Amino acid sequence: MLQSKTVTGRTNRFLAGKQSTFAVALAMMVSVVPAQSARAETIGPNVSHFTLNNGLELVVVPDHRVPVLTHMIWYKVGSADEPPGKSGIAHFLEHLMFKGTAKSPAGLFSQTLATIGGQENAFTATDYTAFFQRVSREHLATVMAFEADRMTGLILNDDNVRPELSVVLEEWNMRVGNSPDARLGEQMTAALYVNHPYEKPVIGWHHEIEKLDREDALAFYRRFYTPNNAVVVVTGDVTAEEVKKVAEQTYGAVKPRADIAPRVRPQEPEPSAIRQVTVADPRVAQPTLERSYLVPCYRTAKPGEGEALDVLAHILGSGSTSRLYRFLVAERGLATNAAAYYSGTSFDPTRFGVSVTPQPNVTLPQLETDLDQVIAEIAEKGVTPEELTRAKSRMIADAVYAQDNQATLARWYGAALTTGATIDDVRAWPDRIRAVTADAVRDAAQTWLQKQRSVTGYLVKEWPHVEPPKSPEKHS
Amino acid sequence: MLQSKTVTGRTNRFLAGKQSTFAVALAMMVSVVPAQSARAETIGPNVSHFTLNNGLELVVVPDHRVPVLTHMIWYKVGSADEPPGKSGIAHFLEHLMFKGTAKSPAGLFSQTLATIGGQENAFTATDYTAFFQRVSREHLATVMAFEADRMTGLILNDDNVRPELSVVLEEWNMRVGNSPDARLGEQMTAALYVNHPYEKPVIGWHHEIEKLDREDALAFYRRFYTPNNAVVVVTGDVTAEEVKKVAEQTYGAVKPRADIAPRVRPQEPEPSAIRQVTVADPRVAQPTLERSYLVPCYRTAKPGEGEALDVLAHILGSGSTSRLYRFLVAERGLATNAAAYYSGTSFDPTRFGVSVTPQPNVTLPQLETDLDQVIAEIAEKGVTPEELTRAKSRMIADAVYAQDNQATLARWYGAALTTGATIDDVRAWPDRIRAVTADAVRDAAQTWLQKQRSVTGYLVKEWPHVEPPKSPEKHS
Repeated sequence: MLQSKTVTGRTNRFLAGKQSTFAVALAMMVSVVPAQSARAETIGPNVSHFTLNNGLELVVVPDHRVPVLTHMIWYKVGSADEPPGKSGIAHFLEHLMFKGTAKSPAGLFSQTLATIGGQENAFTATDYTAFFQRVSREHLATVMAFEADRMTGLILNDDNVRPELSVVLEEWNMRVGNSPDARLGEQMTAALYVNHPYEKPVIGWHHEIEKLDREDALAFYRRFYTPNNAVVVVTGDVTAEEVKKVAEQTYGAVKPRADIAPRVRPQEPEPSAIRQVTVADPRVAQPTLERSYLVPCYRTAKPGEGEALDVLAHILGSGSTSRLYRFLVAERGLATNAAAYYSGTSFDPTRFGVSVTPQPNVTLPQLETDLDQVIAEIAEKGVTPEELTRAKSRMIADAVYAQDNQATLARWYGAALTTGATIDDVRAWPDRIRAVTADAVRDAAQTWLQKQRSVTGYLVKEWPHVEPPKSPEKHS
Repeated sequence: MLQSKTVTGRTNRFLAGKQSTFAVALAMMVSVVPAQSARAETIGPNVSHFTLNNGLELVVVPDHRVPVLTHMIWYKVGSADEPPGKSGIAHFLEHLMFKGTAKSPAGLFSQTLATIGGQENAFTATDYTAFFQRVSREHLATVMAFEADRMTGLILNDDNVRPELSVVLEEWNMRVGNSPDARLGEQMTAALYVNHPYEKPVIGWHHEIEKLDREDALAFYRRFYTPNNAVVVVTGDVTAEEVKKVAEQTYGAVKPRADIAPRVRPQEPEPSAIRQVTVADPRVAQPTLERSYLVPCYRTAKPGEGEALDVLAHILGSGSTSRLYRFLVAERGLATNAAAYYSGTSFDPTRFGVSVTPQPNVTLPQLETDLDQVIAEIAEKGVTPEELTRAKSRMIADAVYAQDNQATLARWYGAALTTGATIDDVRAWPDRIRAVTADAVRDAAQTWLQKQRSVTGYLVKEWPHVEPPKSPEKHS
């Protein structure tokens, strides 16, 4: 279900299957993760953060092990910033950003990258749209020049916009139309949010995508694509001085072209109903059950609460020692799989998710009863000291290992800075996780994992069939 | 549940209880009803319809039996036209319309009406906001002068806006906060609509109402309160010539102050999930079950389809000879009450609703199984010729009798003309109902009463309680 809330990538490179989607989403959404920590001295990057005169923020994380760099530009605009009725325009514009400028005809940027052995991609989420390149270290200026050029220089006309709309609609077919999982996710998201624009799919509603045009794209582009609404993150074999110099020569020449208003979106009322959503599709081989709770994100949580939710998700549903796995899979034999996650890196209140796959002979209502018991138990009785210690150690270690990947590191900073967090928030994350107490975890479960804050989704093979009453002659 | 979709009145006059809400809603929403029909010759009103130079539409329905008239002004703006994040502004502005102008200080209009023995009221719905007065025939010019004056002359300042916000919040407490029924309705509406602004409560979300201010109200007022966005309906002891003359002298002087764009709102995707919503409240004495299906309104339906849905609602759930009543109440003894309705008078797709109240010893799941059977039966086997004839005769007769009431008649025209229907649509309604065939009713049930187009709401006394597993020592 994660992809509908999180990331719609331009190509399939990041989305080769459910597993990889989940992994990407984890890296991007689940945690704002450390650049420096007590356990990370050897790779502890020396992060620099500065702002150009035109308002463009830059983050540089040097890593000199190999002579490559990852360059990402993050715009603080996503599907939750779209005008009503124009769902999908953020993602469509992401595609259109490859259509060329006066200086750089369509395809030149990508061809250049191919020639120099670079990689590229782009993705759109609820709160941000990002473009990235991985190139060898000497090509920083090339990449920055291309990105700076298309920040405000994009040329769109019906000849390049209309064919791309077909591409996006085909992407919808592949990612949503042909994916019962995605359909369930779309419906659950729509039910979880009753007022906030997170209720829309990132890729958009099909009937609205169909009607998007050049004017919509240009209006959105002019409003949000401006240096004062972007963050550039460079990780790899660079220094802050070098990046600053090249950035000033390239991005520095782009004039701000829009005032950026504070990001104020319609907010959710206090959730107050147990919601259930059933989606049937003949292609469903194995039913699944998903649960989403509306919970605070890191930005809106009280101090320590986001961290407690992160730890709670880990204890509840990460790995074979987690509560859900032990009870539902190992002990009761009801499920083949069980997981939980917390999408804390979000600008506005977010979801705490649980998903379970039943054994073939187990019904979803049976499984749900036991799932509810596991959640009730953790909310009533809390977690043990051993669980807490193990979870925290593992989470911090995972983060430390994960930053070994340049792109992951760049994503942490980009996602954090475009959802209201700071460099220091990212750095202090391990310490904040270490400070989580067992009481805080229990309180988080009690406060936030209430069923009236949740939507439960059932993915099944067939719609329920209802027979007319046995004695129809009486009623006709 | 109807009030959340339909009408939020300024006072309680129309909303003394659930029954009266239902009756008003029926009169307003369920049917676009005839001014003339074969069976209504004796009271068949001679309707006139004309437009002033400033764009104001007028409808006159003479009725000379008593020397009184009903004057209503309908603005083509309702809660579905509100900007994102400003829910409740349409209703709040309705309240503020009583705050006075330069010519007419606050209270003068109401005092004048009281002095001349008149009545007044106002209400807001998803598609319109209306103000009405009932006065003796000689006061037409007085009423029109006051209404014309406040169409563009309203004076708002913090001193009169802030106290009224408290009044509206108190109204919210009374109508929503203290009404479990209304809470269920709000949640069901939010779940039924995933993209269209009908998803919001007409009265607004409490957290957004709280923040409404003078600027919001004035911006909304200036955009929508203009003669070219209004319809005046006068019924009673008047002639069209007289109304036209007075209207030109009063309303005719009001300049259009805004261009009115076509009413294009974000539309719903094709519904594709069975949704269920449970609301618990300790004040619930008797659980109830509600079902809403997303269906076309008269404006968006194919020819004959809205009429078939109207007849279907009647056969399914109107009175003690209806399918639901006979099966669930009389035969099976499962319910104490059962009803169905179709809210066809709506600008955008609307709901087909069913509500049932179980006997004290019957659970909601038991009742739902039988409810589903009744619906499956009508969808599979259709209706009998006797049922069809009885329903059509009754519906047409009800409409003919109901137009005996001036205010009802004025409401039919006002609601019709502000939701995309024409005078002729209203007039031809009985003929269109007469033309409905048994096949059309069955087809309507088959096409539209599919569970994946619906939300089922359960109103119960307590949230389900979940016990932790019996052997907690194993899992902690």
